[in-house]
Amino acid sequence: MYKAKAYSAASATSPLTADTIERRDLTENDVQIEILFCGICHSDLHTVRDEWSSFMSTVYPVVPGHEIVGRVTEVGSAVTKFKPDDIVGVGCMVDSDGTCPQCKAGFEQFCPNVTLTYNSPDKHLGRVTYGGYSESVVVDQRFVLRVPPNLDLAGVAPLLCAGITTYSPLRYHGVTKGKKVGVVGLGGLGHMGVKFAHALGAHVVVFTTSPDKKEDALRLGADEVVVSRNADEMQKHAGSFDFILDTVAAVHDINAYLNLLSRDGNITLVGAPPKPLEVAAFSLIMGRRNLSGSNIGGIAETQEMLDFCGEHNITADVEVIPIQKVNEAYDRLLKSDVKYRFSIDMSSMKSESPR
Amino acid sequence: MYKAKAYSAASATSPLTADTIERRDLTENDVQIEILFCGICHSDLHTVRDEWSSFMSTVYPVVPGHEIVGRVTEVGSAVTKFKPDDIVGVGCMVDSDGTCPQCKAGFEQFCPNVTLTYNSPDKHLGRVTYGGYSESVVVDQRFVLRVPPNLDLAGVAPLLCAGITTYSPLRYHGVTKGKKVGVVGLGGLGHMGVKFAHALGAHVVVFTTSPDKKEDALRLGADEVVVSRNADEMQKHAGSFDFILDTVAAVHDINAYLNLLSRDGNITLVGAPPKPLEVAAFSLIMGRRNLSGSNIGGIAETQEMLDFCGEHNITADVEVIPIQKVNEAYDRLLKSDVKYRFSIDMSSMKSESPR
Repeated sequence: MYKAKAYSAASATSPLTADTIERRDLTENDVQIEILFCGICHSDLHTVRDEWSSFMSTVYPVVPGHEIVGRVTEVGSAVTKFKPDDIVGVGCMVDSDGTCPQCKAGFEQFCPNVTLTYNSPDKHLGRVTYGGYSESVVVDQRFVLRVPPNLDLAGVAPLLCAGITTYSPLRYHGVTKGKKVGVVGLGGLGHMGVKFAHALGAHVVVFTTSPDKKEDALRLGADEVVVSRNADEMQKHAGSFDFILDTVAAVHDINAYLNLLSRDGNITLVGAPPKPLEVAAFSLIMGRRNLSGSNIGGIAETQEMLDFCGEHNITADVEVIPIQKVNEAYDRLLKSDVKYRFSIDMSSMKSESPR
Repeated sequence: MYKAKAYSAASATSPLTADTIERRDLTENDVQIEILFCGICHSDLHTVRDEWSSFMSTVYPVVPGHEIVGRVTEVGSAVTKFKPDDIVGVGCMVDSDGTCPQCKAGFEQFCPNVTLTYNSPDKHLGRVTYGGYSESVVVDQRFVLRVPPNLDLAGVAPLLCAGITTYSPLRYHGVTKGKKVGVVGLGGLGHMGVKFAHALGAHVVVFTTSPDKKEDALRLGADEVVVSRNADEMQKHAGSFDFILDTVAAVHDINAYLNLLSRDGNITLVGAPPKPLEVAAFSLIMGRRNLSGSNIGGIAETQEMLDFCGEHNITADVEVIPIQKVNEAYDRLLKSDVKYRFSIDMSSMKSESPR
């Protein structure tokens, strides 16, 4: 084992502070990565504050971060996919059993034995896994991704979660040229949804509660912007959408959007509101409509997404911060005060001297 | 126009009583049908009692009935599909514009100008349409269906609504041999769902709140029966269903069923609970699951369903009643006291002498 600097939280009410953690020595299939940037995802905040305890309790100290971009520093003897100095990414998962039907079908995210990047049982060290708010990480090569050379690395980091979370359902539901696609909410997820749907050739309509986001939505690739509080504006689009990506993590009226779908249209939820959504059966029955969910993507699809970003020169719009501003960033995240994702410049960790 | 005996209700609180109505003279594309049997659908009861006024107010007098089987008595000069004495069916629709994208794609049920079989603007007579609780009806040949000769006609009637409502989503969602299919609720819709899913070769599991329905479910074609109030029994099936047909028209915990779906699994609602269903986003996000709706089927698919029934010797399990027992049947319907659908023997209308 070796020591690495990290930012951890000691309890649900503690701020993140500088800490020293242990990372495992490389096994033959491992890749050691110097972390350059790590995005801040809402899940980080929920986990640090133990707000998802009904789903998975947080074990403290917790080191969050699952939007990791870095440089390979060393590889195990059996590693064939990577070599030192390669620029790589790591997302929400760092291991899975590799043998179950989900893994065999390329859906590692649904493996019953998946190891998440943080706060997940660590089979090597016996504690929980520690995430990317750190200067270094060791990951099995199967869960390490190639980053296209032409992309800005600070903006690549959020692709590893926000990117794949929005790319996967757009692809699965056949978004392409000629399709009319809605994106509900223009935050970290939504702004990626707009970029991808636009790059896939769709006619993109952004739904937002904030009229002042209109200009930015158009800049990101939207063809139209609808203020969702305006019932008349909504009604104009009734029955016309092939697909709607719903990124809103607050309770909202899903029937208003179901009614905008054409026959066989689909709304996919990628945000998880804290309370159940109220779905009127008639909203689904009329027009044979569909309400679905989606959760990141498998490793092969994540690589496909990164390659697609390389081809189309897509990265997240980020505000780069030093790790020392992470607690402030969390407070701003709660106010949606970021366009559109924080990316931590991990070189800022060098000035820390934790115990 | 000609006069025909029918049973109508004069208001939301009136019983159905014998009446005389007018039917149109045949236009060149019309088929005149002597009605032999008409099934009783929950929609009939909702419409008679004006319980769907938020969706479509009832115009009185109302003559319900959209599960019609009869004998052709006369055809218009341009009718090529039918001749006198043919045995035919009419379901929930009697006309549509025929020119919209929905009609062109075979989805007449979603045509914005669809004419429903009863309580729908009648372009010929200027009032609303009158349904199948009558001795005779006149219908455009496009909306008349061929009935296979080998089937019991009393049991065919419910196929025209309950049959197509369950057959259509099973087919659309690819139910076939090797698939594990659930049917929630064992009533008029559910018992047809079981018969179809079984005939399509699926492994069929019936979910019911009534343990005493087990034997009957197995007789109808179920491979297993789960008492849905038993959480342990439910848990045994977690993550294992390809498709679940939900026929329950009462509010129920849909998340309990979503959690039984495998990756990419689908629950389709064909019952319409009076209040919205509470859907937890995580139930959809984990496993990329889907919640959908479905509403009858197009005319071509309805014919396909009838032909399938002919091949597999499928009819509804019915209790045949004379029209004079229709009000009693409505009361029993509310108590689910029927196995599994009432079918009115319309020859009983002969003894009536309405004003």
